Amino acid sequence: MSAAANQSIRAGIVGATGYTGVELLRLLGAHPAVTIHTVTSRTEQGMPVAQMFPNLRGHVDAVFQTPDEAPLNECDVVFFATPHGVAMQQARELIDQGIKVIDLAADFRLQDVSVFEQWYKKKHACPDVLKEAVYGLVELHRDQIRHARVVGNPGCYPVTVLLGLAPLLRQEQPLIDTQTIIADCKSGVSGAGRTASLGTLFAETSDNFKAYGVSGHRHHPEIAEQLRELNHGKGVGLTFTPHLVPMIRGMFSTLYVRLLPEAEQTDFQELYQQFYAQERFVDVLPAGTWPETRSVRASNMVRIAVQRGTEKNLLVIMVAQDNLVKGAAGQAVQNMNLMFGLDEGLGLEQIAILP
Amino acid sequence: MSAAANQSIRAGIVGATGYTGVELLRLLGAHPAVTIHTVTSRTEQGMPVAQMFPNLRGHVDAVFQTPDEAPLNECDVVFFATPHGVAMQQARELIDQGIKVIDLAADFRLQDVSVFEQWYKKKHACPDVLKEAVYGLVELHRDQIRHARVVGNPGCYPVTVLLGLAPLLRQEQPLIDTQTIIADCKSGVSGAGRTASLGTLFAETSDNFKAYGVSGHRHHPEIAEQLRELNHGKGVGLTFTPHLVPMIRGMFSTLYVRLLPEAEQTDFQELYQQFYAQERFVDVLPAGTWPETRSVRASNMVRIAVQRGTEKNLLVIMVAQDNLVKGAAGQAVQNMNLMFGLDEGLGLEQIAILP
Amino acid sequence: MSAAANQSIRAGIVGATGYTGVELLRLLGAHPAVTIHTVTSRTEQGMPVAQMFPNLRGHVDAVFQTPDEAPLNECDVVFFATPHGVAMQQARELIDQGIKVIDLAADFRLQDVSVFEQWYKKKHACPDVLKEAVYGLVELHRDQIRHARVVGNPGCYPVTVLLGLAPLLRQEQPLIDTQTIIADCKSGVSGAGRTASLGTLFAETSDNFKAYGVSGHRHHPEIAEQLRELNHGKGVGLTFTPHLVPMIRGMFSTLYVRLLPEAEQTDFQELYQQFYAQERFVDVLPAGTWPETRSVRASNMVRIAVQRGTEKNLLVIMVAQDNLVKGAAGQAVQNMNLMFGLDEGLGLEQIAILP
Amino acid sequence: MSAAANQSIRAGIVGATGYTGVELLRLLGAHPAVTIHTVTSRTEQGMPVAQMFPNLRGHVDAVFQTPDEAPLNECDVVFFATPHGVAMQQARELIDQGIKVIDLAADFRLQDVSVFEQWYKKKHACPDVLKEAVYGLVELHRDQIRHARVVGNPGCYPVTVLLGLAPLLRQEQPLIDTQTIIADCKSGVSGAGRTASLGTLFAETSDNFKAYGVSGHRHHPEIAEQLRELNHGKGVGLTFTPHLVPMIRGMFSTLYVRLLPEAEQTDFQELYQQFYAQERFVDVLPAGTWPETRSVRASNMVRIAVQRGTEKNLLVIMVAQDNLVKGAAGQAVQNMNLMFGLDEGLGLEQIAILP
Repeated sequence: MSAAANQSIRAGIVGATGYTGVELLRLLGAHPAVTIHTVTSRTEQGMPVAQMFPNLRGHVDAVFQTPDEAPLNECDVVFFATPHGVAMQQARELIDQGIKVIDLAADFRLQDVSVFEQWYKKKHACPDVLKEAVYGLVELHRDQIRHARVVGNPGCYPVTVLLGLAPLLRQEQPLIDTQTIIADCKSGVSGAGRTASLGTLFAETSDNFKAYGVSGHRHHPEIAEQLRELNHGKGVGLTFTPHLVPMIRGMFSTLYVRLLPEAEQTDFQELYQQFYAQERFVDVLPAGTWPETRSVRASNMVRIAVQRGTEKNLLVIMVAQDNLVKGAAGQAVQNMNLMFGLDEGLGLEQIAILP
Repeated sequence: MSAAANQSIRAGIVGATGYTGVELLRLLGAHPAVTIHTVTSRTEQGMPVAQMFPNLRGHVDAVFQTPDEAPLNECDVVFFATPHGVAMQQARELIDQGIKVIDLAADFRLQDVSVFEQWYKKKHACPDVLKEAVYGLVELHRDQIRHARVVGNPGCYPVTVLLGLAPLLRQEQPLIDTQTIIADCKSGVSGAGRTASLGTLFAETSDNFKAYGVSGHRHHPEIAEQLRELNHGKGVGLTFTPHLVPMIRGMFSTLYVRLLPEAEQTDFQELYQQFYAQERFVDVLPAGTWPETRSVRASNMVRIAVQRGTEKNLLVIMVAQDNLVKGAAGQAVQNMNLMFGLDEGLGLEQIAILP
Repeated sequence: MSAAANQSIRAGIVGATGYTGVELLRLLGAHPAVTIHTVTSRTEQGMPVAQMFPNLRGHVDAVFQTPDEAPLNECDVVFFATPHGVAMQQARELIDQGIKVIDLAADFRLQDVSVFEQWYKKKHACPDVLKEAVYGLVELHRDQIRHARVVGNPGCYPVTVLLGLAPLLRQEQPLIDTQTIIADCKSGVSGAGRTASLGTLFAETSDNFKAYGVSGHRHHPEIAEQLRELNHGKGVGLTFTPHLVPMIRGMFSTLYVRLLPEAEQTDFQELYQQFYAQERFVDVLPAGTWPETRSVRASNMVRIAVQRGTEKNLLVIMVAQDNLVKGAAGQAVQNMNLMFGLDEGLGLEQIAILP
Repeated sequence: MSAAANQSIRAGIVGATGYTGVELLRLLGAHPAVTIHTVTSRTEQGMPVAQMFPNLRGHVDAVFQTPDEAPLNECDVVFFATPHGVAMQQARELIDQGIKVIDLAADFRLQDVSVFEQWYKKKHACPDVLKEAVYGLVELHRDQIRHARVVGNPGCYPVTVLLGLAPLLRQEQPLIDTQTIIADCKSGVSGAGRTASLGTLFAETSDNFKAYGVSGHRHHPEIAEQLRELNHGKGVGLTFTPHLVPMIRGMFSTLYVRLLPEAEQTDFQELYQQFYAQERFVDVLPAGTWPETRSVRASNMVRIAVQRGTEKNLLVIMVAQDNLVKGAAGQAVQNMNLMFGLDEGLGLEQIAILP
């Protein structure tokens, strides 16, 4: 389905009281081809969204509706900015009515149902829908997304790790030791969501740095599944360590890979530049420069640098994104654009905010 | 002069290596009616601006030129994002060629030359140009700005104090004691500029709060001059205390005024709402709610709340803005839009970034 | 009761899971005359306090006990670092056993029971104990504190406002207009406590500045009651505006007072220096310098500056403290030292942490 | 030389205007066995140190003297908190007078003169003194330090990496692949020093995360030299990536090592606990818990966790310290204590500041 010239896409957002929700509202509220048709919240019925999120005053008029009263069936697309497990309850009914579904939670990310159930501690409600769902990392699955009815928007960490490693794995000749990949990842605090929680209070996280989830994190199986696909079906060995940075937005992943002897002479700068030459939202930095998260703050851009380590045969890849945009809401809009035959970058061209 | 349909305004930016400079580049780089024609820097000749400010990569192609080689004479408008004292050296020559001048420094803010010379420790280079220059606070001087050749863009603190007090002073009946006004103002660190300086290092300003300039600040005479004008030519008594807040962007002014007995019954909420009813970039908040700086982060909006104090006859006005947008670069673009007969809000409708 | 040479004061801390609790543990854990005898928590029974607060590892061995099992009756002093309303339930029983009580909540701050009940929405459980309780601001009530059985440790804002104004009010000759006092106060986020709460999340408070409680705050009546006492029993007019600063610790109050004509020639610098000449924890800064919160970070010091405003007859007083130390736990230890006949500064001489 | 009972160690601090300088002043100002005898600065002659660093008011009376007038020859120990290259000019003269030298810069860290000269771009002024100088990482070189006349205090990053790896390398049986060690390190901004610099402004570093020095950093050869020594003289392969975290103090290193097949069954938790069982300033955390930098803020403690990775044969070691204390001034005082036969922890037992 493609949006006719004079006809806006009617978008519904289920569960828009979190950070991915307000970011979706910011992007869709300014999107030239979208009308926000309904916004739901179980707890805030009747409150204008701009009362909860005052940045939206004057831009977004929507009022929270309960999931029951919200006219989701009148939408062209429904975004789920909900906790894990909500979208899978409603996806079947929506797609049966011809409504596209984009889930920003994990319900349609992991293609292996048993892995989903192990990590998210719930039975999957619609394995059949999952089977047709597409993993919504645009740069890797663009063609499938165009025709998808259901998209599982990727987790924030996976976007950085997968875009950082794809140029190495999507080669005919093996370049790296796929069994010793290390992803040392750092995230701003907004990644933890807009939920009253001791661990993400200002006084707990400011002026502090720590690792978390070192013994296992839900994004590990998601990354692993996609890496296996990139690696022609062969599993990879990945060590993944997330850390918490005292900043609101931003994600930075430092990836370490061992080069195979036959890749020693490869020009990786050139390889990355070519791989992403046609991508509007992936920027390979010039040799000798490295990304910083503020260079993508509030934008849909990912910036990547590739650097030979001081040790022979070690390659360091650095990837920066805004976890709420390319790592969540921006990616979702990019998916929507593709699913409706729009220009992929529509409504996503904002310049990052620096300083 | 008005920009023809197919014809972009050619803009020059003198001294674009600071924070108001990069913010101008962000706004003008996305402005539908502007082409960035030249960007100057005395020290960075030949460097792409996007190398200094990586958020601009892919959006702004300009390369720094020296002031000598820059084709300012081919521009329609020249912005000075320079230290105080530069614009006044070049303004005469530019306006004689029909080029509009918008100075983001102080050269054309103070209409009293002697006050300028006292506070800025330099002789004014063009008192005659100053005489015709307009103080570029759009909401107060819109009509004059439309026809101005030279605009002195206001200081960041003055914008908040003046917009906060204007509804009280621009009344036929006196409402407040104009001799006991207090402005307790708080600014993010970017207000100090992008200059290597001990006092604004992260390790000096983070997790810290302090007052500065308590015994006198350059924005005091600027505010006082404009308040006198608002006060029908009678001088006001103003205490102004600036403070430094550990945040990048944002300015918050808490204003305290004593009400005259005859104003005791006035509905100030109503008065403010009416005063700003037609303004797109001034948002009077609903009674009982107060602004926060993040609600205007990276946007051109000012949000104002008015609140009766717990003491009789005391009114508290709170004003929040982004010091780099409405307090600097956004205001400058708003001025430009007016000067060229464009829609006043063109290129300035971005939704604030929250969180 | 005075601690014998070889005998430690046995201290109990009720409700030590908050920020004032951990700060008390830090100070008492290093106090040469104190043994931490019991630490209670309703929810964390059996957990070592150093597991919750890893900074205490190796320094404090205590394990949380439930209020029921905790041997409070074996203590010499019990600190209540609890929500409002807990201490007043237990104070009578403790003092009847000869145990001193220091409450860091509000139960024994307001001497007027009806004001307490209005602002804290609970009936006071022991008005008779309240009658003998002393307001624990050491510099103002030192002699009474020495002999007190129950001390109501002051709120954080009141400490700064009261110490900032006391030198003006405790004069035989009136110096200021006591009806137009303005206290513009700014607090770090730790002041909101260690409670899961949306409003104090990092992503909500970082890079942001806002006012709150503008229409009324619990510390207003507390300050007003003490100011009346300082003002020889006559009520004062106080406008009090609290603001939230994106820093962990620190509180900064900017106070504005109108001078009476007869005080125009007063040397306020001298007046403040003399008033606080004998105080170890109040530092009047040299003329022309102003405090910053980091200069007292993690220390019990208050730093004060007094500055004539640019307007005639206007005096600006600036006061900085660490809200968790002099504004809470440090003050409590200072009270304890006095109540047990110890050197007032024992265990409180740490140098502030800068940067 | 050992400090007599009633006799304080007279300490001189050369170049105390930086962050390691003020931290030394904080620690020495409260040290029971030290008198600050002289403090030098080339530019601030005559200024009380407490004027530059207001946290020291009331605690440290010293006034800056020029290097020429400062009575360094009356000191028992001289600390150099100077830029690289200063201490080596004066060390010979001082030790010839029997004065101990502790250099907090790099002059006496690298034992290979040519490596020093390559990385620090200066000729070494006293290779003979360097030969006797001891690398002042107490936990690794305690016995030599006791008898040293000159100590090269280690760099901040090296402390974390070396303490994190020492338990693995100081074993008779090889446990890890020493050729593929990865150190992903993160530092607070104070590590860059107290120097006016664009790159460490608040508005450049706050709410931002980035890597730097990826292609080579001066601490790499320092770590490598010490690792070789730990590795029984055999060089190791180390990839070292420093990152900048928006916090004032704190350093966190995440170390990745590959286990040899024969080490697969090793209990690394036990191994680390035993290795550091006698150390007062190294805290091995319980299994399953990981450090955070605030748990050591303003303290001399290092906290270490060791965790099997999700991949077989991969060990993750996490190390947190305060870069200004254990990573600089605290380590220096610990060295001094040893050199003067004092209790090693004297003046260093402060509990970390949390929150």
